[in-house]
Parts: sequence; C-alpha cells; structure tokens
Amino acid sequence: MSKQTKISNAVIRRLPRYRRYLNELRKKGVDKISSSEFSHLIGYTASQIRQDLNNFGGFGQQGYGYSVEGLYNEISAILGLDRGYKMVVVGAGHLGQAIVNHTYYYKTGFIVTGIFEVDPNLIGTKINGVEVMDYEDIVEFVEQEDIDIGVICTTKEVAQEVADKLCFAGVDGLWNFAPVDIETPSHVAVENVHISDSLHSLAYHMNKKNPGKNE
Amino acid sequence: MSKQTKISNAVIRRLPRYRRYLNELRKKGVDKISSSEFSHLIGYTASQIRQDLNNFGGFGQQGYGYSVEGLYNEISAILGLDRGYKMVVVGAGHLGQAIVNHTYYYKTGFIVTGIFEVDPNLIGTKINGVEVMDYEDIVEFVEQEDIDIGVICTTKEVAQEVADKLCFAGVDGLWNFAPVDIETPSHVAVENVHISDSLHSLAYHMNKKNPGKNE
Repeated sequence: MSKQTKISNAVIRRLPRYRRYLNELRKKGVDKISSSEFSHLIGYTASQIRQDLNNFGGFGQQGYGYSVEGLYNEISAILGLDRGYKMVVVGAGHLGQAIVNHTYYYKTGFIVTGIFEVDPNLIGTKINGVEVMDYEDIVEFVEQEDIDIGVICTTKEVAQEVADKLCFAGVDGLWNFAPVDIETPSHVAVENVHISDSLHSLAYHMNKKNPGKNE
Repeated sequence: MSKQTKISNAVIRRLPRYRRYLNELRKKGVDKISSSEFSHLIGYTASQIRQDLNNFGGFGQQGYGYSVEGLYNEISAILGLDRGYKMVVVGAGHLGQAIVNHTYYYKTGFIVTGIFEVDPNLIGTKINGVEVMDYEDIVEFVEQEDIDIGVICTTKEVAQEVADKLCFAGVDGLWNFAPVDIETPSHVAVENVHISDSLHSLAYHMNKKNPGKNE
C-alpha cells in the first residue's frame, strides 16, 4: 500500500467492482486493457476510470493500457484482500446460515470461525462444519481466537447490543445485516448492509419504466 | 407522484435510507423533524437533506421542519412502495431460502409467489409455505401469474440465461444476487446486488483504521 494517499470514499466504493471485472478478465487470460475497453465493460466513463485508477499509482500507460494482473493485485492490496480474516457470525437464522454456507467468502480469505446463538435448540449444532456456540461465550471466543470481523445477523432490536459486545471483545470490523444502522467506536469499521434498499430502488426504476402500472 | 420531475440516481439511492429513518420516527410517534435534527440522526448534512428533499415538493417549512408522516408517505409513493409486487425466486439454495423466509418483504408488499429450481430433490417441497417448482415451467407461471419481479439466486454461470428467460416471460424488474452484473432489455429494471462488495469495503476501512495489522 506504499503508493496509497487519501482516497475518497466514493472511489473506495467502486474498487470492489473494478476488482470483480479485472478478476473475470484475468480468468479469461486477458493481459492488458485500455481505459476505453474497460469503460465499455464496466459501464463507467473512460475518464472516470483513469481518474479513479490514478489515485494509486501509474498502472496505465498511454497507448498501452492497464496491466490486468497488476491492477487486480494492486486493488486487492489496497482493499486489504491480500491477507486473511477471521469472522464470527451472530445469529444462526436463515441469513446467518446463508452466509456461513457461502463458500465464496472462504475462498477469498474470510473464514467463519464460530457462530453464536441464544436459541438452545441451535447451540451445539453445526452449519457447514462450523459449531454454533452459546452467545454467552462470545467475548471469550473473540478474544482468544483474535477474531477480526463480527457479522451481525440478528433482529434489529438486539443488533446494537451485539455490536457493542463485539467491539468490547476486540473486533476490528462489523458487517451488519440487521435492518438498522449500528454505531461503533471510531477504531472499529462498520458496513451496514441494507439489502431491502436495493429492492426499493428496483421498485422505483420499474415504476419509472412502466408508469402505467403504478396507477 | 404528481410532483415528480427528473430525480438523480444518487438521490434515488438515498431515498430508501430516508424512508427507513422516517419509519423509525413514525413508530416513535414523532410528528415533525427539522433538517438539522434529521442530519444528526441520518448522518447527511442538513444542506444535503434540504437539497434532496426539495426534489419532490415543499415538505419542509422554514422554522417548522418536515412532517414525518407526510414525507414518509411521499417517499414511499415515489419509490413505488404504495403498491404490491409479485416475485418469483429462482434458485432454492441457502440465499434463495433466506429471501423466501424473510418476512420483511411480505410485510412491505413484496410477495414471493413461486420458487423455481432445477434440482429434482427440491422440486415439490415448500419453503415458508411457497412451492418449489420445476424451472422448466417458469415462463408459463410468470405469464399466468403476472409476476413483477424475478429474484435471481443462482450461480453466476446461469444467471444471465435465467435473466433472459424472466425478461422473455414478462417481468418488469430483476433483483440479482448472482455475483455477476446481468443485463436486461431497456424496459426491464435490474438491481445487481453484490454483497461481497461491502465486505471488501469493510476490509479496506478496517486496515485503514488499524494499518499495523496489514503488514
């Protein structure tokens, strides 16, 4: 991350998308891509792409294009995806199960090490080989296992309380799926994921394209 | 939606979030809120809030604030949440199951009417009371039931093919969870949800807050 200066949040939000497209190109064996070819693929303007990627060093060369592998590795390093992370999931309901069962996270270095529940019927069972443990024991586990990320898959009513406990236990980040924006101390990063927001945006765009159906 | 003019995509993306906060305020019995109080709560600047909300009529009054209920209803109507939607889910794996089991969508008018699968072991079973049907029959079902939204919970390899079939059958929108950006004809809206993008942003912010761990 040597070349990294202050990168705006908007650029950071776009990096995972750049990385996904670069990964597809890598897998197809593509070595180089010009900003205009990349623009056609990813849907940002070529000037936006050049501006974004200029934030972290001169990977593009005039008349030559970007090195797909080089850019992919650089973006991965900037995002911190060149290391592994240990996660605990709190809440073994349907969403918690879906996350624990999603092998993608494992393949990319995000390992679910423990699942925590209050429901005695679930404690002691296993999901995708990972033990469901008593929520009462979460602080000790997070401390001992040096967990990096807490994944909150609880109801919104208890989400902040769970977040506070995870922060107390020493996680560096929270990935929150409860439908509420949780708050963290300044040293703990948080991403509040509101899946339904995208459904509501979809509804908007559907009605805009087909206004007759809204009457 | 009478007052609606052209609203930018960035504003549309923020509306679900405004709506969530307004809903919490409504439930707490709050009648009015000033842009500065709202700013404190939602984390946008007061000037951003005034600018965003000015897009759709004069709901705020100087020295009086916004009507919580009025604004909530207006944003709901703009998003198209004042009507119901019928959805089919394609793919009854963990994520598909999580979506079908998530009662939130039902409560807000998004009803899962059918689930489609290719796996013969799953066809004929029920998830949250909804029948899992043979993917072969999806076009007929979507046409007959006048389905609005197709939810794609398949692998990325088949996602575009499923999308094409759903568009052919006549859906107005696609909510895609496969880790690939799918394309649709111009009259069909699409939201590509990349949950892992938020995990990658989280990793970035964690490493920025705790740079020592990245070495």
